[in-house]
Amino acid sequence: MDTARLNWDENGLIPAVVQDAHTREVLTLAYMNETSLQKTEESGETWFYSRSRDELWHKGATSGNTQKVTEIRLDCDQDALVVLVEPNGPACHTGARSCFSDTLVKKEEEAESTGRFAIIEELE
Amino acid sequence: MDTARLNWDENGLIPAVVQDAHTREVLTLAYMNETSLQKTEESGETWFYSRSRDELWHKGATSGNTQKVTEIRLDCDQDALVVLVEPNGPACHTGARSCFSDTLVKKEEEAESTGRFAIIEELE
Repeated sequence: MDTARLNWDENGLIPAVVQDAHTREVLTLAYMNETSLQKTEESGETWFYSRSRDELWHKGATSGNTQKVTEIRLDCDQDALVVLVEPNGPACHTGARSCFSDTLVKKEEEAESTGRFAIIEELE
Repeated sequence: MDTARLNWDENGLIPAVVQDAHTREVLTLAYMNETSLQKTEESGETWFYSRSRDELWHKGATSGNTQKVTEIRLDCDQDALVVLVEPNGPACHTGARSCFSDTLVKKEEEAESTGRFAIIEELE
């Protein structure tokens, strides 16, 4: 793996979007330093760097909810990764499949609602 | 939209994973400040904050490759977003559909290769 071209941030980290390789659901946004990326490649499972605990973190080491890596992709300015995984259980510490379980805005509902009103208006 | 519970970083930004609402492909990792998130909600199209240019950035304003937002999701520690979009063209400035067009590691090929060898060994 050629890591020389990666643009690490001022703390030596790169954000990693963890995505389910099959469902394509985004599971987590985590961070890797060079050591955790190397450990990820060597072990075939995700290793991150915990900014809050300031330590390397093998995902699933205690919970068993490891993530088998199938692919790592790099973006056009070499400062973000997408890590495609086969998860061995929920990604989130809450027990949810994804860490992104909270909907902030949903426009589709509005569109559906507008659609329904449009039909009602036509019927009237 | 309740933005009070968002954990903005020390620069007032939050990372936003932009994902195609239909194909679920991850298109870009970009950053939003509070103003760009408000503009995103109001306009229904993605607005980001460019860290390199230090300015608000309406995606597609010059290229026409806007992104219609269908949903915004928030993660469990309120410091990352997933923005689901219907893209009106390529997400990447290179013309690629996604900014993540560069494969750093791909394990599936190895697995397939191993699988093939396993079959060959059985036949022998």
